[in-house]
Amino acid sequence: MFTKNLVVAAPVTVGRRHIASTGGKVKVLLANAGNANCATGQPGIDACVQTCVAAAESFNCIFDEVFPSSTGIIGVPFPAEKVLRALPKAQKALGGTQDHADLFAKAIMTTDTRMKAAQASIEADGSKACIFGVAKGAGMIHPQLGPPHATMLVYLFTDIEATSEQLRSSLAPAVEQSFNSISIDGDTSTNDTALLLASGASGIKLDESTRESFACALSDVCSSLAYQIVNDGEGVGHVITLHVTGARTHAEAKQIAKAIAHSPLCKTAWSSADPNWGRLLAAAGYSGATFDPSKLVIQIGNLPVFECGTRSPHFDEAATHLVMKQRDYTITLNLNQGQAEYRFITCDLTEEYVRINADYST
Amino acid sequence: MFTKNLVVAAPVTVGRRHIASTGGKVKVLLANAGNANCATGQPGIDACVQTCVAAAESFNCIFDEVFPSSTGIIGVPFPAEKVLRALPKAQKALGGTQDHADLFAKAIMTTDTRMKAAQASIEADGSKACIFGVAKGAGMIHPQLGPPHATMLVYLFTDIEATSEQLRSSLAPAVEQSFNSISIDGDTSTNDTALLLASGASGIKLDESTRESFACALSDVCSSLAYQIVNDGEGVGHVITLHVTGARTHAEAKQIAKAIAHSPLCKTAWSSADPNWGRLLAAAGYSGATFDPSKLVIQIGNLPVFECGTRSPHFDEAATHLVMKQRDYTITLNLNQGQAEYRFITCDLTEEYVRINADYST
Repeated sequence: MFTKNLVVAAPVTVGRRHIASTGGKVKVLLANAGNANCATGQPGIDACVQTCVAAAESFNCIFDEVFPSSTGIIGVPFPAEKVLRALPKAQKALGGTQDHADLFAKAIMTTDTRMKAAQASIEADGSKACIFGVAKGAGMIHPQLGPPHATMLVYLFTDIEATSEQLRSSLAPAVEQSFNSISIDGDTSTNDTALLLASGASGIKLDESTRESFACALSDVCSSLAYQIVNDGEGVGHVITLHVTGARTHAEAKQIAKAIAHSPLCKTAWSSADPNWGRLLAAAGYSGATFDPSKLVIQIGNLPVFECGTRSPHFDEAATHLVMKQRDYTITLNLNQGQAEYRFITCDLTEEYVRINADYST
Repeated sequence: MFTKNLVVAAPVTVGRRHIASTGGKVKVLLANAGNANCATGQPGIDACVQTCVAAAESFNCIFDEVFPSSTGIIGVPFPAEKVLRALPKAQKALGGTQDHADLFAKAIMTTDTRMKAAQASIEADGSKACIFGVAKGAGMIHPQLGPPHATMLVYLFTDIEATSEQLRSSLAPAVEQSFNSISIDGDTSTNDTALLLASGASGIKLDESTRESFACALSDVCSSLAYQIVNDGEGVGHVITLHVTGARTHAEAKQIAKAIAHSPLCKTAWSSADPNWGRLLAAAGYSGATFDPSKLVIQIGNLPVFECGTRSPHFDEAATHLVMKQRDYTITLNLNQGQAEYRFITCDLTEEYVRINADYST
């Protein structure tokens, strides 16, 4: 799945083309950090293809079995020669251990401060199939991955046996509830990519008997990686789960969660653990969703702050401040007008985020 | 005109009711800063009405000829007694000089660092009619004023003679191009209000012969106030005019301008005068508007930075950086696919903005 941004980077264009021409067969995953190869015109496409051809030679496959990914600055000519020079070293460093996986997870980091990895497994007929995922991303994070998503990069590896079509239909719901339900700054990148690859080595088939357990395991890995991305967001001090319940529709719940997640006033209040729930209410009010403010109940953690159109009689500022001092907590908005709900994970906005992104050199 | 936020403050509810019952007749404008009287339930409405009744007594009019406005924190019980206590002082301080107007403009300030006022006049038949406007607002600024708007408060006074209906239809287009086309942080307040009052004292009538010159003068006053609001935005270092041209529709141009204006990554790059045009391109790409990136031309000031799908061959990083070091400059995005255009005034996002809004005491 690739970014839904109308402007896409060269590796997204080339990666889509390769997936289409091979029917989803990938032998080599070629990722670089530092330059997004986006808005680089035809020379950018040419440079991307050149690196795929060279990687195919190094690793004995055809060039469209190479899947390219880039993350970094937009609009700077792509230095293909750096990739070409690195290939022999990459070839020598190849291996199948946990250390090798960690090296890969670290190599794709940009402003990330921690590597992000997660795993899960399922059992069937006495055998075990695994899913291992790595991800990067700390800024320009509000992924909107669509069918045939960026600068979040997610690579999911499994040894289950499955067709491309099965993998595609497994990935979409897992991504919707994880990567498509997080935001650091509300900026959707031109390079976001989530790739699910299956080797078949476990001997376990993805079929009616394993479909549900595989979907669960994949969802667990994606949710863990999505959480790790927000938790390592640029300048993040607090990870907030927005849980909108009692909505008439899923879309309505989503609208409210996103308006709050993207409100600079809500985000700055979270940074100082300020129980200024009026900002939550104002953002819900301009979200475009229709609700009755007098039915809305807002809770921070388990503490009611707003109900019956006004400050809750149980509002305890000091206790609410203590909940908000935690690294990680949930804010619940119950619209009390339906059964639909939506969970969205986001973070606070800090001076450190501004410093990182105002840094001229980035 | 009042905020389009679904959640509205008590003075907005009461103000709407008063305007409706009097047919737009206002004798007293009663404004306070520090408490928004929003999300305060029925006690908030009662407190607002109580202050209107007291002001009507002090100034000899009926209570629904009093127009209430509040700005400040949301969700804290409204201290009506403070307003009641201040009325005798306000009554003594009443006057018609420039100094009195300035005192009013200063009294409504919250996080504003400067008072905001503007004036214009028109001539007809040897007489002169004036428009004088004052405004406040520095944060939670992304006004979306609709027919029967907040915490931007704008008061426009004119001595032209006009009906309520004429004033209403003059105000809407002036607001659309001014207050509804600015944003500091993208947060739409629950209290935004723009009020246009006409005394008729000039003896000039608003009719076919004066309609156009009055519309121009009103538009000038509104545009000046809107600019002053952004220029005094919380922590603002740069005022950016986004000019989207060559669009198929006005709505499409607006979508792109707003996505850029609300992108934390664009806003932080502006704060350090970083010519990182890739962030402009990415925001345009996820705006939801449809355009051909290869036809798009982006200029910062008069300097081309992006054209033909890639970095402009004329891109001069040092020169662009110099343009961006100015307090005030324009970024133009020409989509080259139509005749529609849109101008939107916004600002950078700075550590100072975060400090102001993360301050627990606010």
